[in-house]
Formats: sequence, structure tokens, C-alpha cells
Amino acid sequence: MGRTYAHPEPDDIHLPRVLFALSDPMRLGMVRLLAGREAVNSLDLGPGIPKSTVAHHTRILREAGVTRTRPDGRACWISLRRDVLDARFPGLLDAILAVEAEA
Amino acid sequence: MGRTYAHPEPDDIHLPRVLFALSDPMRLGMVRLLAGREAVNSLDLGPGIPKSTVAHHTRILREAGVTRTRPDGRACWISLRRDVLDARFPGLLDAILAVEAEA
Repeated sequence: MGRTYAHPEPDDIHLPRVLFALSDPMRLGMVRLLAGREAVNSLDLGPGIPKSTVAHHTRILREAGVTRTRPDGRACWISLRRDVLDARFPGLLDAILAVEAEA
Repeated sequence: MGRTYAHPEPDDIHLPRVLFALSDPMRLGMVRLLAGREAVNSLDLGPGIPKSTVAHHTRILREAGVTRTRPDGRACWISLRRDVLDARFPGLLDAILAVEAEA
């Protein structure tokens, strides 16, 4: 039996939790990377970062409703729930992605 | 000698910290209340909430660069640093304030 990952329904995605998920520089970086892609292998989301750390951050993003995690054999594909976020919080993701990443 | 409060310069206001400051329902409520006003007496920011709790939250907002605290005798006037935030993160505050407050 494959792994399954829980994702909140759109109505259960709440602004404070989304903002918290985005308030970490590493998670912000992941969201920036995801913004231009269909889906990213979780191994490519945090190159050089321990897998457990990447898993911790992708879990917080997924549970907040920011990303979707799709297991595929031993891999996980992560994608941004852009449509859902844009419908629920118009302009929020655009405003955040427009800010240049800082070193 | 009066109390003084430190406020970050615009260049020292960083997105992750601003998002963290806004990721708490009480602080989000304070920001919504401040959005329509010039300044609000800190006592009116959290009616029925212990002063120490209000002070904790206004400190986090101030240190993140979201609000300005101006002491006035025994009172404190809190205001939103709207111009600074809008210049640094265009559209962010608008997007957040457009989201209806949830119960």
C-alpha cells in the first residue's frame, strides 16, 4: 500500500497558517522554486539539505494548504496549490513572489 | 526621560519576519484594526486582553517593521507603517487586508 498524504480542503486553508508556512526563508525559497514548475521532486527542493529537514518543511507547507505532495514510488512530487491559493487569497502569492529573494 | 522604541529601517524589514508577524490571528486582527486609522491607543488594540499580551504582540509587529509605537505619557500610540510596507512589498498588505477575518 502506498503512502498517502492529507491535504486540507480549500475551506480549511486559513490565512494565519499560510502566512506562518511562508514565514521561513527555506520554505519561501521552496515556494519560489515551485512557482515556475508543474511539480518538483522533493529531493530537488533542498539540494544539500538533509532529507528529514526537507520533509519537515514540505510537511508544514502541505498541512497549511500551500503545496500538494504526490508520492511516486520512493519519490515525492511537490507542487504549489496555486489555483486554490489565488482563489482564496487573491494577490497574496503574487505579492510574495514579486519580492526578490534575499541572500 | 521617556521610553523609546526601536524601529527597523526600511532596508532592515524582511519578508519572512513580516509574514511571521502577520501569522498570528490576534496580530492580524490588530493590523486590520490599524488599517483604517491614523493611530490607535494600545489599550484599544486588545480590549479585554491582558496588557502584557497586547505588549507582546505589538512588540513583535514593531520589531518586524509592521507597526510604529509612539509613547505619549503613560499611553502608547500604535500605527501601521503602511507606506514603508507598500513600498517594500507592493500589494502584500492589500492582499492580506482583503481577506475576511474569520471567527
